[in-house]
Amino acid sequence: MKDKISIGHGSGGKLTRDLIKGLFLKNFDNPLLSALSDSAVFDLNGFKAAMTTDSYVVKPIFFPGGDIGKLAVCGTVNDLAVVGAKPLYLSLGMIIEEGFPYKDLERITQSIKETTGKIGIKVITGDTKVTEKGKTDGIYINTTGIGIIDNDIELGIDKISVGDKIILSGSIGDHGISVLSKREGFNFESTIESDCAALNNLIQDAIKIGGIKFMRDPTRGGLAAVLNEIAEDGNFEIIVEEEKIPVDERVKGICSILGLDPIYIANEGKVLMIVESGVAEDVLSVVKKDLLGANASIIGEIKASGEKGVYLKTSYGGMRIIDMPIEDHLPRIC
Amino acid sequence: MKDKISIGHGSGGKLTRDLIKGLFLKNFDNPLLSALSDSAVFDLNGFKAAMTTDSYVVKPIFFPGGDIGKLAVCGTVNDLAVVGAKPLYLSLGMIIEEGFPYKDLERITQSIKETTGKIGIKVITGDTKVTEKGKTDGIYINTTGIGIIDNDIELGIDKISVGDKIILSGSIGDHGISVLSKREGFNFESTIESDCAALNNLIQDAIKIGGIKFMRDPTRGGLAAVLNEIAEDGNFEIIVEEEKIPVDERVKGICSILGLDPIYIANEGKVLMIVESGVAEDVLSVVKKDLLGANASIIGEIKASGEKGVYLKTSYGGMRIIDMPIEDHLPRIC
Repeated sequence: MKDKISIGHGSGGKLTRDLIKGLFLKNFDNPLLSALSDSAVFDLNGFKAAMTTDSYVVKPIFFPGGDIGKLAVCGTVNDLAVVGAKPLYLSLGMIIEEGFPYKDLERITQSIKETTGKIGIKVITGDTKVTEKGKTDGIYINTTGIGIIDNDIELGIDKISVGDKIILSGSIGDHGISVLSKREGFNFESTIESDCAALNNLIQDAIKIGGIKFMRDPTRGGLAAVLNEIAEDGNFEIIVEEEKIPVDERVKGICSILGLDPIYIANEGKVLMIVESGVAEDVLSVVKKDLLGANASIIGEIKASGEKGVYLKTSYGGMRIIDMPIEDHLPRIC
Repeated sequence: MKDKISIGHGSGGKLTRDLIKGLFLKNFDNPLLSALSDSAVFDLNGFKAAMTTDSYVVKPIFFPGGDIGKLAVCGTVNDLAVVGAKPLYLSLGMIIEEGFPYKDLERITQSIKETTGKIGIKVITGDTKVTEKGKTDGIYINTTGIGIIDNDIELGIDKISVGDKIILSGSIGDHGISVLSKREGFNFESTIESDCAALNNLIQDAIKIGGIKFMRDPTRGGLAAVLNEIAEDGNFEIIVEEEKIPVDERVKGICSILGLDPIYIANEGKVLMIVESGVAEDVLSVVKKDLLGANASIIGEIKASGEKGVYLKTSYGGMRIIDMPIEDHLPRIC
């Protein structure tokens, strides 16, 4: 472990995992946290509940397709959704820089109102801190969510078997490239919008079909980080096909110019599902019925057990190793 | 409303209340939030649960008697305790500045481990973000807590009546003056320690006696802010006696030198209770049995209704109006 925290420790990749396992799990060892799922799932007076937390430090705070408020709500709702929970309540903690424009705070607040209203959840408790100018970059938001799980679904990397299919609910890279483009002032003919959206309805519909073993929303570290987590923790060999992974042509173009790979770029409205082979097509067709899953695709499968690794079958027929990201190519993206 | 956010908006005083009422309540209007209690209390499958959130931006992060980790845990536990809840689970969201010393993060983590262990609660979910150097002042921590309420206590400013007694569990100003002294490098013969502590056991014991109408931990804005909230929201005239309010002699001394009033200074291990007159002495004696309440005292009473205001009967027999704090005299204290 390095002696100083680096940007990579917040990347969602290898350094983040090292920090979580080497420091946080060592100290806060308990089965709920150790599961390292997007939300902790626990028993509360005889029924299952879920809790998740996320801080948002995205820069800029307003970007095409969203803003830090919408992002916070959707991100937290998605973390509840992927453990099978129906989101209920949110807390909202804001750290604001002295001198922050009131109208921006108003705009963010209205965005949170609109987003929570659409989802049907409520902000029930909050906190506001203000730091001196220069000690916060505008505004940072923490949202913590709780939800209930009213189905019998059992999710976990330990439920995954060889042969299971990998469903991705749509194109990758949109959020990261949208925020980056706005931040760097890139000018394109058409604006790339973040995919920032709440997936709770899409996921609840898919759950009804059955056969889902594991879900995760590929945010920081992108698709590559999620696939590598599954490979590492489950000791699996995973193969995904480049041709099956939807990528917007403009995202592809920018990535190619900047030397980025969309598979490592953050998404904020996508879910990856590991599904029993026999029902994968059924789950896919339900996902595709939701507007947010219109471009969903079965992108690959859990190929083998024992030799862990993630491989991409390229469009040209070759095989490429997809490593766990280590440093953060695009910091402050969420 | 000003057009920019100022330090005072995070003070816990008038500007904070204006922001909450004028912006957040307007947008997130729902009965759970509108109660504006320390924790939201809600029904979850037929039983009562509570949720609260707090972000901590204290500077310095290590101070006599505590650190940002212990402070976060105790602060959140106290917010659950004052609505009558038993704390169960915590989430932990960290925003860390690039270059932050790993050993400091380790020390904070161990402090959180120790504090949660003593209280008997668990950190079950977390999130870590890293910002570039200069965009966070070391580390900011958000803790969100959930708890259950397994008693029939009904708390609220609307439950308070004229004649009710005001119990304060101990001396005021210790936390704020401890942090300030450390920050400014004051050197005294003996170090003033923060009162940072979890009050859940003290409060649960007191609840068993009955007669408690309302509780709050006087943090930002100090005792003055809590008393003014009660006076304003309940339309009460409140009288407290200076002689009955415990203040450490050293805290008194520093306040006097710096022109501060301990009644406006933040506490992190104190609770104010409004208690039915007939049982106030019984509640007091239970509070005093707890080490954290050894210096508890009945400091005043709800004097009248209709004309709202908070008055301090001074040691010299005079009466002084205690206003709601507007700006923040000691920012970054929690």
